[in-house]
Formats: sequence, structure tokens, C-alpha cells
Amino acid sequence: MMNKKFENMKRLFNPESVAVIGASDKFDKLGFHVMKSLTTGGYRGKIIPVNPSAKEIMGIKAYPSISAYSGNIDLAIIAVPAKFVSQIFDECHEKGVGGIVLITAGFKEIEDPEGAKNQELLKEKAESYGIPVIGPNTFGMINLTYDLNASFTPEFSRTKKGNIALVSQSGGMSHLLSFLSQRHDVGYSKIVGIGNRLNVDFYEMLMFLKDDPDTKVIALYIEGIDNPVLMMKAIEQVHTQKPVIAYKTGSSKSGDLASKSHTGSMAGRYELYIGGLKQAGAIVVNSAEELMDTAKALATSSIPNGNRVAVLSGQAGPGMAASDTAEDMGLVLPPFTDKTQERINELLPPMAIRINPVDMGPAWYDAAATREIIDVAMRDENIDAVILLIMYASANIKAVEGITDMLVEWKQKKPIITCISAPPGIWDKEVRFLEENFAITNYASPERAAKALGNLWKYRKILSRR
Amino acid sequence: MMNKKFENMKRLFNPESVAVIGASDKFDKLGFHVMKSLTTGGYRGKIIPVNPSAKEIMGIKAYPSISAYSGNIDLAIIAVPAKFVSQIFDECHEKGVGGIVLITAGFKEIEDPEGAKNQELLKEKAESYGIPVIGPNTFGMINLTYDLNASFTPEFSRTKKGNIALVSQSGGMSHLLSFLSQRHDVGYSKIVGIGNRLNVDFYEMLMFLKDDPDTKVIALYIEGIDNPVLMMKAIEQVHTQKPVIAYKTGSSKSGDLASKSHTGSMAGRYELYIGGLKQAGAIVVNSAEELMDTAKALATSSIPNGNRVAVLSGQAGPGMAASDTAEDMGLVLPPFTDKTQERINELLPPMAIRINPVDMGPAWYDAAATREIIDVAMRDENIDAVILLIMYASANIKAVEGITDMLVEWKQKKPIITCISAPPGIWDKEVRFLEENFAITNYASPERAAKALGNLWKYRKILSRR
Repeated sequence: MMNKKFENMKRLFNPESVAVIGASDKFDKLGFHVMKSLTTGGYRGKIIPVNPSAKEIMGIKAYPSISAYSGNIDLAIIAVPAKFVSQIFDECHEKGVGGIVLITAGFKEIEDPEGAKNQELLKEKAESYGIPVIGPNTFGMINLTYDLNASFTPEFSRTKKGNIALVSQSGGMSHLLSFLSQRHDVGYSKIVGIGNRLNVDFYEMLMFLKDDPDTKVIALYIEGIDNPVLMMKAIEQVHTQKPVIAYKTGSSKSGDLASKSHTGSMAGRYELYIGGLKQAGAIVVNSAEELMDTAKALATSSIPNGNRVAVLSGQAGPGMAASDTAEDMGLVLPPFTDKTQERINELLPPMAIRINPVDMGPAWYDAAATREIIDVAMRDENIDAVILLIMYASANIKAVEGITDMLVEWKQKKPIITCISAPPGIWDKEVRFLEENFAITNYASPERAAKALGNLWKYRKILSRR
Repeated sequence: MMNKKFENMKRLFNPESVAVIGASDKFDKLGFHVMKSLTTGGYRGKIIPVNPSAKEIMGIKAYPSISAYSGNIDLAIIAVPAKFVSQIFDECHEKGVGGIVLITAGFKEIEDPEGAKNQELLKEKAESYGIPVIGPNTFGMINLTYDLNASFTPEFSRTKKGNIALVSQSGGMSHLLSFLSQRHDVGYSKIVGIGNRLNVDFYEMLMFLKDDPDTKVIALYIEGIDNPVLMMKAIEQVHTQKPVIAYKTGSSKSGDLASKSHTGSMAGRYELYIGGLKQAGAIVVNSAEELMDTAKALATSSIPNGNRVAVLSGQAGPGMAASDTAEDMGLVLPPFTDKTQERINELLPPMAIRINPVDMGPAWYDAAATREIIDVAMRDENIDAVILLIMYASANIKAVEGITDMLVEWKQKKPIITCISAPPGIWDKEVRFLEENFAITNYASPERAAKALGNLWKYRKILSRR
């Protein structure tokens, strides 16, 4: 895929200059919000507002057209009515623009068949010009690593930087995932709304992200698939190098119908697609939260070599909940080696559950004992990963502090998936420190922690198929 | 159940005076944390620290024994080693104490059979004295309505006041649910850790909560069940008046084993218990988050009369995700009446999905249109409940404001379950206002919103069985 369009993808995502066609000072224009995103998102390149009836927009000199600007333009964001787009494509070509984000709606997704026809014409143009186009009918895209917010929502820039790339067919789902991730401290490299996929579909995005140094994990939100063969081919090529997680909606009768209208393509044949995605090597998930949780695990944890997990809990109940979910996900809780079990028996009084899942409760006041239980379990040759659960109580306020250096030193040589939970404001800093040092991957509940580990294990199984 | 023990339950939960036996000034004693909970939790009754070697604890006059205190004692919280407990029970009886919270561990749950024997002896005593005992092996209990924090975790008092009573066999799970609820703004009347259930088991708690004016919804976390027949009987008697939600762990081999050790009773026969719980009228859920989400729905929403739902979304993707989950939960998305559909077709341009699930996206800039779409869908005779999904974008920042008065006026005559999502700090106030006025019940994701509505529908089905 080393054609001109593909080469231009780098200019599209890492532009030194961005023109906003339809830039505006008026709140009710999308061009206003796009300008806000660019100007407040920390973008360090050149911004060129284009509007025939403005001298200046948000304090930046405006131009009547892109040709009126003398410099180079890498990326053009288009936010004008559909009828003007074809001519703007020609101008972009003449100007040597590298890529386009086409926010404008009113193409393949509308009832009027003219919409689909116009999209087809635009596609032919873009292909002949070798210009990759994100959209139409999209909020845009954000390259967080590059501080480029080429979308109509400035608050996307509040998303934490990380190495997950989200490629989504739905703007609403992209917004939701960003907001959830802002609350859960999950970091992204890119968030891309591919909308109606003029000539940049899942296939092109996957092939581009395969070599994107900022991206380690690829998360997909899928409604309909126009070209399933190409998409599966791309997943096959990418997934051994970078895990691909897929959330596909449209299992319901009503959702299926909705998909047709929304993205201009048939969702249909849900089970067939799910089977295809799994076959191609994607990790298939069933909700927005599971997509985020799984992407976070793959972005921050090591991958377990096997499915044998030790559940170590400061309290028995959460340990049981995690054990149930773990077994549901295909994980097992094996007995420890004799050596490990003997040591744990020495460290814990006989009133606790000392076999796997371990109830470390009675070691609360004995930080050294807790440390050593975690340490011997992690070193156990029967154990591939650890689920560690600690619920705050005022008596155990030092529980996290007491194990921090050990966890940081381990750096998830085996995955350490945790639910360390406390009232807001307590342990937030400690958990963030541990996560930023890749010592743990933390979740809001024991069940979500166990599910995330289950999906890490799925990835190991997918890798071992090859 | 109008015996003395049951009458004393009211004194236990609404005491005018509380003795802390084992009160301490030392951080490493549980009696320290219990004193903190009582003194910082806003309790307005009399606190009596009992400790033979202290004159004063946390500025409150201490007594060497409860008999040394001349006044009345409604509740005694015991946090001393197991060997002293039997004698303290006798003293409590002589003093006329109404109820006991027995935090002390080391009874039925320990490997030494002496533990179970001692618990049995204590039980006989408590029964003959007519004293209800919460515990042993518990963090305690919190009556939030009454500002009584009789637990060893002061931060339980940060839980929002509401009308859900949580009765839990696990301290860890109770802490987790409180912390999750603090983050999700879910309110409780009581949180009770029944621990090893000396003589207050699920049965007694259910019968007590049946007539508790502060409790509207009962949430149970269950590991093992000693007396399933009595428990099911209680659920049968309570659930038509107050919904009962049950989360039972122990489905896994490992969890099952753990349960035996933890609570001193066999979890076992998981499917059998699940069947029994459903048969008795409980709404069975599968995770801590689902327990919280479902309790919140039942506490704040009306119950739908049928399973026909309208999904109204500001963006198509979240609408599809909600539709998928809704159908999984047994809900259906029927066509609107002709009248409703005609009006929606007038309000939305042909570029949107105008049938159920409705994509209201193109009405973003037209607050009046959005209002009317919601209004006509809610009034539609084909519709029993509405799922409303709005993801923030800077262009639609007024979206929630624009529908607030209408939603408040509707007051969920039909349930309005929402996922209104935005970056932290945006719309938080608006959503809280709507929730506090019982206008909506809001969730973090479209899938969780749809699942909560599905569980409301399950409750309707359970009610209609009778």
C-alpha cells in the first residue's frame, strides 16, 4: 500500500500546517468549534483559517481561499455545506494538500440517493489526487501525541496521552470513550472518527497504525463493514505486532436497521462478522467499558504466558467475585507450589483463606507479611499472573504505600492486575504513581479487573495460534 | 417474628446511646477506628467508650466496664479479642443492652473447630437474652439516615444518604460498593455487614427492612447461605413491597472453596441457589456494578408497565449500543405510532435515523425540536420507557439545560434512563440536579443504562407473577 495516498497519511496526522475551511467566529458554526480545538489544544504548527468574509478569526489572519495563502498546507479540515466540497477538493489538489478531514455531513448517510452518488464522485477525486480523507460525516480526529485536535470538540484534548489508538465509526462512541477515559485515566495516541469512510476505512487506518510509533494497541468501534475481506486482511497483518480490540454493535434487530441509516452501510450478519473478526485475530469485546478496559490492559501490562492466576485479596468477598469472573473468562486458579503454600501458611494465621484465592485480611497490620505473600505468589512457577485486590479501610491506610516499591521493581514481569479501591481523594495519588510506573493496571471493580486479565489471556491465545 | 430480639432491632439501628467495648486511642486497635467513625460521622446520641485502662478516649469520658456507666445503653459495639466476648454478652444482658455489633473475628470462620463451638455458645446466649447481634467477623454497620457509623471505617459516612439498604456477607464488597457509590452519587439508608451471622442473618435483616421507613430497595451480597429456606421465605414476603436485588458469588470452583473458609458456610450448589433466589422474587445480578446500578434504578425510577422502549440518542452509535443491550435484556424497540413518527419526521431532516432508535443529532442546534422529539416519544402509547443518550460536544453544550424543565415536569411517569456523558466538570451539576429531582436515572455508559432498565423490567415481570 505504498501509494501516494498512503504516504500522505503521515502528513494528515502530523501536519506542519492546517487550514480550516469554513473557519468561523460564530458559535453555531462547526468551523468555530474546530478553530477552538486547534487553538486551545496546544497545536504548535501553523493554523490557516479560510473564510471569504473574514479578515481574522480568533486573532489569526484569515484567507478567502486556500490558494490565497502562499505557504504549504499539509492538512485541510473542511466544515462547509456538502455542495461546496467537490470544488474544495479540486483546490486542495492544486494546492498540494496532504490530507483532508471532511467534517461535513449529507453524503452516503442521507435518504436522498444523491448523497451516495456525491460521495462516490468525491471518492474518485480523492483517489485520483492521492489524498486520504477522514470522513465525511465525522467529528474529526485527534493526534494526542502531536497535540493536534482536528475535531469539533475542544475537550478531546483533555484526554490523557498514551499509546492506544481508537478508530471509530461513531462520533458519539468516540466522545463517550474519551469522557470515560478522562475519568479512568486511560491514555490515547489517536482518536479517529472515520465516519462514512470516503477513502480511509478500517483497512487503511490499520495499515497506517501498524507502523505508527506512538501506537501500541488498536481499539476499533465498528457498526457496518463495507469491505470485510480487506478489513480482516488488515487485522491479520497487524494483530501479531499490535493487539487489535473490536467492539461491534448491531446484534439487535433495531441496532442493525439503525446502522444502515447511520453509516450508509449494512451492519447485518452480526454473528458472521464476529466470527470473522475473531478468526482474523481481533479480541472481541461487548461494551464501551470493556473496550476501554481491555485497551488499557494491553497498553500497560505484560501479556501472561499462561492462564494460571493467583487471586490475592485484602478481603475475601472481592476475591470471590474476581475468581468467578476469572473462571468465566477461561482463567484458572491453580494450587500454589508446596514451597509457596508453606510460606503463606507461615505468614497468615489459620483464620484466613490461605489457598488460592488468598484472603490476606489478617496480614493488614503486618506490611512485611503482605509484601511477602505477594512476592512469593508472583514468583510461584504455577502462576502466570496476579489479581491483587485491596479495599481501603482506615486501619489499612498504609497498605498501598507498603507494597509500592516492590510492585514498581517487578514492573509486571508477570501481569499484576488490580482493583485498589478507596473513597475519592484517598490512594488516588498512590494508584496513579503505580500506573505511571507500569507497576499495575488498576480497575474500578474486581470483576472488571478479572475480565481485563481474561482478555490479556485471549491475546496470548491468539498469538500462539500463529 | 415479634419476639424480643426482633423488637430490639430498632434499638440496634437507631440507638440513643452507644458503648464501644475496646475503645482505644491507639491507631492499631480496631476500637480506635470505631471511635473515629462514631465521633466524626455526625452521630448525635451518647457515646460511651469502655476501656479498663483509660480515663478518656478522643476527649470522651471512658468507663472500665459497661456496668460502671450509670445510664442506658442501646447499642454495644464489641472490638475486643474473642476470648472476652462471652463474658461481655452477660454484662450486656445485665445492663439491658438492646443490640450488639460484634466486630471481633475468630469464630466460625477459623480452622480450629473451637471457633464454631464458641460461636454456637454465643448464639445460644444472645438468643436467650433476646439481643440481636450483627457479626461476628464484620466491619460493622452504618445507618446513614441516622448518621450512625458503627463500623471501623469512618469514610463510610461519606456515602450519600438515600433509600437503598445494602446487606452484605462481605466487608470488602461493602467497602467497594460504598466507594463506587461515592463516585457515582448513589445513596444508601443502611450498609450492614452481617459477617458470620450469629443470630441476625439475611432472614432477620429482610424482615426488619420490610418495615424500615428509610429503605425502599434492598440489595444483597451473598456468599454462602446457612438457611436457604428461611431466606427465600423472607424474600417472598418482602419483594412485592420492596424490590430485592441479589448478587451471589461462588459460581467458580475456587470461589466456592473460598466461601467455605470465609463465612464458615458452604457456598455450594450455585445454580440451585440462583434458581431459588429468582423463584423467591429476587432480581439476580452478576457484578458489584450491576448491583449498584440496579439498586439505583429501583430507588430513583418508576417501574415500566411493559418492555417497549424508545431509544433517543443525540448520536447514533451510543443508540445502537443501548439497543443491543436492551434487546439482550428482553426489552423491545417497537415502531412509534403513526402520529409520533409523523411528528418526528417533521422535526428531523431526512439525513437522520428517524425511526426507533432515533438519532437526534441533526436537531442539536434546535433545542425546541429535541424537546419535542423526547416529548412525543414519551407520550407515545407504544412506549413504556425511554433511554435517552446525550454525549457532550462543545456545539451542544446547552443540550441538557434545554430539556431540564420538561424532564423535571415528567418526573419519570414513564422511566427515563439516561447516559448523559461529558468531560469531568461539565454537566455534572445539571445531571445532579435532574437526578435529585427524580427526573432521570443516569449511568456511565449506554450499555449500563440499558441493563438497568432491563432489570427494572425484570422487577415488573416478577411483580406480575403474583
